[in-house]
Formats: sequence, structure tokens, C-alpha cells
Amino acid sequence: MHEVIYVTGGARSGKSSYALRLAEPYHPRTFLATAEAFDDEMRDRIGRHQDERGEAFTTVEEPLFIDRAIRDAPVGGVVLVDCLTVWLGNMMHHLGDEGSINDRIEALLDVLKSPPCDIILVSNEVGLGIVPENAMARTFRDLAGTLNRRVAECSTRAYLLCSGLPLVLKQH
Amino acid sequence: MHEVIYVTGGARSGKSSYALRLAEPYHPRTFLATAEAFDDEMRDRIGRHQDERGEAFTTVEEPLFIDRAIRDAPVGGVVLVDCLTVWLGNMMHHLGDEGSINDRIEALLDVLKSPPCDIILVSNEVGLGIVPENAMARTFRDLAGTLNRRVAECSTRAYLLCSGLPLVLKQH
Amino acid sequence: MHEVIYVTGGARSGKSSYALRLAEPYHPRTFLATAEAFDDEMRDRIGRHQDERGEAFTTVEEPLFIDRAIRDAPVGGVVLVDCLTVWLGNMMHHLGDEGSINDRIEALLDVLKSPPCDIILVSNEVGLGIVPENAMARTFRDLAGTLNRRVAECSTRAYLLCSGLPLVLKQH
Repeated sequence: MHEVIYVTGGARSGKSSYALRLAEPYHPRTFLATAEAFDDEMRDRIGRHQDERGEAFTTVEEPLFIDRAIRDAPVGGVVLVDCLTVWLGNMMHHLGDEGSINDRIEALLDVLKSPPCDIILVSNEVGLGIVPENAMARTFRDLAGTLNRRVAECSTRAYLLCSGLPLVLKQH
Repeated sequence: MHEVIYVTGGARSGKSSYALRLAEPYHPRTFLATAEAFDDEMRDRIGRHQDERGEAFTTVEEPLFIDRAIRDAPVGGVVLVDCLTVWLGNMMHHLGDEGSINDRIEALLDVLKSPPCDIILVSNEVGLGIVPENAMARTFRDLAGTLNRRVAECSTRAYLLCSGLPLVLKQH
Repeated sequence: MHEVIYVTGGARSGKSSYALRLAEPYHPRTFLATAEAFDDEMRDRIGRHQDERGEAFTTVEEPLFIDRAIRDAPVGGVVLVDCLTVWLGNMMHHLGDEGSINDRIEALLDVLKSPPCDIILVSNEVGLGIVPENAMARTFRDLAGTLNRRVAECSTRAYLLCSGLPLVLKQH
């Protein structure tokens, strides 16, 4: 049975670095990037992350259909999905309605329930601040929280990163 | 000696579901709802939570005097208070001055120090984002943080929920 | 070898109180306050914290050059730095450019790598809410997250406070 490892945390908490370290033992490694470069801030961020990874990973950019991208990855290796929260933002931007978003989430959960390879998923905790004044931001944090719960439920291991240090949320 | 179980976490982190599971062994079960339905968003949220509970609970709605509502609950069962952060918001809205709010908090703490039944309290972590620009939001998060500390201090067990998974903050 | 103890958490999560308790066994104790009293809200906060500490500490106020203040503290005691997030805010306000801020951070890390005494550092988690709309706030939370990771990496022990209760992030 393949592993499904869930890594969550706040901004700059070391989630991606920790996920990369978890991926080290695997060959081949696929990096599934969900971010789209809308502006210079994003382009910088994506560039820094690519430098951090080096050449050990094959990078696949897929903002929406991550279930298919995981199924298309080489057998026997690992797929690192970075990250689910950006993916959710892409779906709200490109798909809009909650029905279509839920279809994509169900498609991902189907993959996680019978994983074709080992999978590491990075996500963000966005619900531990004051309730946002903006209604769209409230909807986003509700959907993000629910997505995180459902993915974490499918995981075989789960970690919360805090100041670069992992807290174990779930173990074998 | 009765248990006082404190369950905290961010928005959509699985706090309420976890608290409901902790209440399962008890009979009778009282659900003490602090939320008032100001608008459709709240009405939907309250409705979804009621559906989740089913008929195993007697629901009591009490936005302010939760100390009395806990004392009035049936002996030998459990009272699940959901949630303290909404209760604090109600007090800021209806009572306003900090003196009256503190009186109500002391009244709750008195109940928790000599609990008449087992009590499960759900709360929210709201202080892990950027400092809010809005002064009222800053006051709210300071009061919420202090309330959480004082209630957690009275608890016999405490949990932080993250992506639906519990971290133990305090054990017997 | 001296200890470097890192204590983090949200607003009003009990970080400072916990750090004060960790400092109790030491003599002499230096409290290194990074906050500047810009307004009444800050003056109140600083005053409350001073009352909480009592006379067991010598207080040193240093908003920027905390590496030097740590080196100047009495040998054989403890220095409690409260807090790193306010220090970062001071540096953004007074130094401005990222190069000068990074120089100060490197100077602190140098001290932490060969500590002249035991050091307890308090910080804030600010990256677990929704992405701020304000670009300056985004920059601040990115820098704060990175600072926290680098300091936590140098620590011998690390704690996350939640509702006044500590979660162990790192142990000897």
C-alpha cells in the first residue's frame, strides 16, 4: 500500500522544505506545482522554490487537474503536490461554482483513497486568524479548512509545521 | 470529579465534530449553542451543525448566560458548549463594557472550577494571523486569547484540532 | 553549552508567561524588551508586562541591537528576549531595506550559535490566517516566518504555546 503524507502549516513555516526532505528517499520524484505566475511576486516565489529543489525533481505545472497529473506520474516514485491551498484558489478563480470545485476535490480524494504511487501533499492553515471582513475570504477559508480535513483524513501520515519544526498529527 | 474538556482550533478545523465524538458516551447530552442567527450565512451554518448532531442532543440556545444554562442542565450527563468565541462576540455586542464581560467570564470559570456535570467547551484560535488593522478586532483577539487561557487552565483535558486531527494540549 | 530556548505562539497565547516561568531557576535574569511605546495601547501593554515580571528581572530596552544587548548581559544568568516579532517590526520601521535587516538577523544568529549565557526568545506566529491584502503585511509575515525558522533551528528547545498550554516542538 502506498503512503499519502499530508504536510500543513502557516506561511513560511517550512512546509515545502519539510516535504522535499520527506521525498528524498524516492526515485523518480515528480514535483506537481499548482501555482500560476500571475505577477512578479509569484514569479519570484516560484523561482526560489525551483532553485531550492534543484534537478532531483521533474516539475509538472498543473493548476487544476491534479488528480490526472498524479495518475500520469511514473509508477514506483513519489509525487509531491505543492500546494492544495493555491490549487483551491485556482479553482475558485477558473471554475467559480462550488459544484465544479467539489467535483475536482472528489476526483482528488478518489486518487488518494487508492494511490497509484506515494504522494506527499502540502497545504496551508488559513483559519487561525480573526474572521476576515471580506465575504470571499471567509468562503475561501471555509473551503480550505474543509479540504484540509478531507485530505488529512485520507492520509497515512500527517504533520503540522511550526517555525520549521514538525508536530506529528497522524502516524502509522 | 467531573471532566472539563477544552477543544480549540481554527475555522473548519474539525473542533465541533471532535467535541461531538467526545460527547458520544454520555447520556443525556445537552448542546448549548451560543450562536444567534443574525443573517443567512449564520442561519445556514447553524442549520448544518444541527443536522450533524441529529436527535441525540437536546439543544439549548443561550447567547449570554451560559453559566446558568450549564447549571440548569440534567445531572449525570454532559453539556457541550459551542462555542466560547461566539459567546465572547455576543457579550461585546450586547454588554459592551469590559466590566460586565469579565463578570460573565468569572461566572463561567466558577462553574468550571466545581462542575455540576461533565462539560465540553469548544473555542476558536484567532490570534495566529497578522495583527488586525481594526482596533475592535485587536481588542477581540486579545480578549479571546485571555478567555481561552483561563478556560484551558480549568480543564482536565485539552485538544488543539488541526485539519481534523487532534493534538493533545493537556491530559489527566 | 548554554541553552537557547525558543517560545512561540499566537497573540495572548501565554508565550511571555511561559517564558518567564522558564527563566525562574536562573540568577541573574535580564529582560530584554524590544517594544517601543508608540501609543497608549502599547504603553498599557508594556506596563502590564512589567507588573507581571516584578523585581526579579533587570529590564533592558533595546529595539534594534539585540545581539549587543545579549552580549552585554551578566555572565552566568539568563536573557529573556521579548519579542522577536516586535523587533522585526522595529527593523522594518527604522532600517527599512532588507539588506540592513538581514545583517541584524545574522548578528543575532551568530550570538545564538555560540551563546554567552542561557537565552530564552519569545516570538509570534503570524502566518496562520488568510493572506493579507496589504503588501507590506505580506512582506512582514514572510520575513517573520523566515526569522522564526532560523531562530528555532538554532534552539536547543522549542515550544508552541496554545491557549496557555505548551506543545513541545523540539527537545534535547
